[in-house]
Amino acid sequence: MADQYARPSDAAALSAVSPLRWEEPPEGPVIVLLDQRRLPAEEVELVCTDVPALVDAIQTLAVRGAPLLGVAGAYGVALAAVRGFDVEEAAEMLARARPTAVNLAYGVARVRDAHRAAVRKGGGDGRAAAAAALAEARAVHREDAEASARMAEHGVALLEELLPGGGYRILTHCNTGALVSGGQGTAFAVAGALHGAGRLRRLWVDETRPLLQGARLTAYEAARAGMAYTVLTDSAAGSLFAAGEVDAVLVGADRIAADGSVANKVGSYPLAVLARYHHIPFVVVAPSTTVDLGSEGGADIEVEQRPGHEVTEIPVPPQAAGAGTGAGVPVAPLGAQAYNPAFDITPPELMTAIVTENGVVSPVTKAGLAELCDRSRSGNGMMSI
Amino acid sequence: MADQYARPSDAAALSAVSPLRWEEPPEGPVIVLLDQRRLPAEEVELVCTDVPALVDAIQTLAVRGAPLLGVAGAYGVALAAVRGFDVEEAAEMLARARPTAVNLAYGVARVRDAHRAAVRKGGGDGRAAAAAALAEARAVHREDAEASARMAEHGVALLEELLPGGGYRILTHCNTGALVSGGQGTAFAVAGALHGAGRLRRLWVDETRPLLQGARLTAYEAARAGMAYTVLTDSAAGSLFAAGEVDAVLVGADRIAADGSVANKVGSYPLAVLARYHHIPFVVVAPSTTVDLGSEGGADIEVEQRPGHEVTEIPVPPQAAGAGTGAGVPVAPLGAQAYNPAFDITPPELMTAIVTENGVVSPVTKAGLAELCDRSRSGNGMMSI
Repeated sequence: MADQYARPSDAAALSAVSPLRWEEPPEGPVIVLLDQRRLPAEEVELVCTDVPALVDAIQTLAVRGAPLLGVAGAYGVALAAVRGFDVEEAAEMLARARPTAVNLAYGVARVRDAHRAAVRKGGGDGRAAAAAALAEARAVHREDAEASARMAEHGVALLEELLPGGGYRILTHCNTGALVSGGQGTAFAVAGALHGAGRLRRLWVDETRPLLQGARLTAYEAARAGMAYTVLTDSAAGSLFAAGEVDAVLVGADRIAADGSVANKVGSYPLAVLARYHHIPFVVVAPSTTVDLGSEGGADIEVEQRPGHEVTEIPVPPQAAGAGTGAGVPVAPLGAQAYNPAFDITPPELMTAIVTENGVVSPVTKAGLAELCDRSRSGNGMMSI
Repeated sequence: MADQYARPSDAAALSAVSPLRWEEPPEGPVIVLLDQRRLPAEEVELVCTDVPALVDAIQTLAVRGAPLLGVAGAYGVALAAVRGFDVEEAAEMLARARPTAVNLAYGVARVRDAHRAAVRKGGGDGRAAAAAALAEARAVHREDAEASARMAEHGVALLEELLPGGGYRILTHCNTGALVSGGQGTAFAVAGALHGAGRLRRLWVDETRPLLQGARLTAYEAARAGMAYTVLTDSAAGSLFAAGEVDAVLVGADRIAADGSVANKVGSYPLAVLARYHHIPFVVVAPSTTVDLGSEGGADIEVEQRPGHEVTEIPVPPQAAGAGTGAGVPVAPLGAQAYNPAFDITPPELMTAIVTENGVVSPVTKAGLAELCDRSRSGNGMMSI
């Protein structure tokens, strides 16, 4: 089950964004989530004491973002192990909580496999196996944070090579910052590194309908970081390109197929087409755990279809919807049907590059991507630019 | 000033949509508007007894849509004349109420000129001049309705030529139906004619952020007409194109420059780029009164920049926002800056055709457009296809 408590906003503003942490209070270990559905209006934490509560948090997007889903899945399996629930059942529930982000399945599998191995090795010693599961979850978390830092470095180097000497005006979509990661995120981490170096002229933030992760979450992170940022409706991006106001597009990914096709938040593909039409770099930033070599191309990626009411009802904070329901306000006629895919697929030919913690592949090819995934994690480099 | 009264929804459902009418109750003539800000939740009429009330209704989008703005401007000048207000001052206020739709200035100028001529001819007979102004406003209204019908005919003929034998899946943006017109509208009128002929397979309705004219108004009109329609977020259109689910894009226009550049609701340009990338016809449907031969190209069209809160606050019906304010619910952090152009510009090379009441120009060229505008209104034909 999940409990909630609110933190005072001003105290929170002084601390770094921490979307997920493992805690061990006297009552037993828990996973504490920053409830992203309620940002930026409220900073409320959600305390998960069991796997069904975590699965619900994943499905309702209280916790979201491909890399962070991997971390959440990893800790979820560890939670089951440490609390003595059925680890295999927990792993199965978690892995299928959302279908598109492959990181979730990756994080779950790593901890489940570590637990299995420890059970075999320890002759069924549950405590040792639980400790091994938790250690593996912590490793997934730490590696994700490290991957963030390396993606930011590679991303900045790529932009300097593509657009030498620039102060950059970056357009981004959805939310890819510290809220989706054990570290500083993916695409947003690159913008953050540019900002840190005094070279980010502006971050253009697509609001990202239907759930407004851009307006709510990316703007929140940009404001905390002190970036110059501007929010826009997703379809206003076209006139920014036409006006020459965008130097590069940076987005994350929820799954990358072997051929380099990228499933990312719906609205990424139109940006890729616009970027191509305007000869602007379109760059995908994602950890190698997002690559699914088992999916050959975009057609093999299952795109999650979400409920139509996310489109036909406007999500408003609970206090506005009345009665604390959190339900949306209808904007379309009663009974209106909606098309609401969570993701779209961008083919590799529309991308300038994919940036991972292991380096950069540009142009995006199947062989280049495979080589990047093979590369040892200690490796570090640019390729094919 | 403006008064409001609500009509029972079920009675309204039985009648045709009537966004604007002239009435002459005993207290004096008025312009009655269907308040489009409150659709589809409520059908409320707004009664304007003077020009400032009408200007406010235009600026707050209670009445909107390029052709209808022309009709509203025409009746506004007539209202000033009939009620004995300063006609020249009224015409000036109305013409600058919104900057982009040239139809507004056109409707205002026609009635003002008719009034001026009648004043000159009648030696200052105010009643005769007022009657002439009202007659001219009624003519603008009637001509707009007739233009709708002819655009629908030409649009259907064009689609049959471009895509022979089809049941059509049409993607549209914003609202272009009876709510924007003295008749059945522009792009939506074409879809309506296809539907009437049993050949509309589906109307894909872009929700059209920020003010959701698609989800609120086009869906409302599509539902009333019994069309098969589906609402989507603006950026979900990309994956519809990629899946081969769109046969043609039909949009309206707020101003068409002499070279064929079209200013239309923001989000039209990205659709044109996507349509080009996917080899799908992109067709603009607008009356010839939308053509402004005084604007040479897109750069000469003033694009209205609207307040940022339309993006950073979600418009919700008054009953949900509390206290009947109609104010939005904030979704971005406090102080977030927003980029909110009302329109974008689509260059002629991205269009398949422009359909007017005088015929079709395809490909879109300056000479072709000029010829179409010259053509007598009784003329009727297709050209250059």
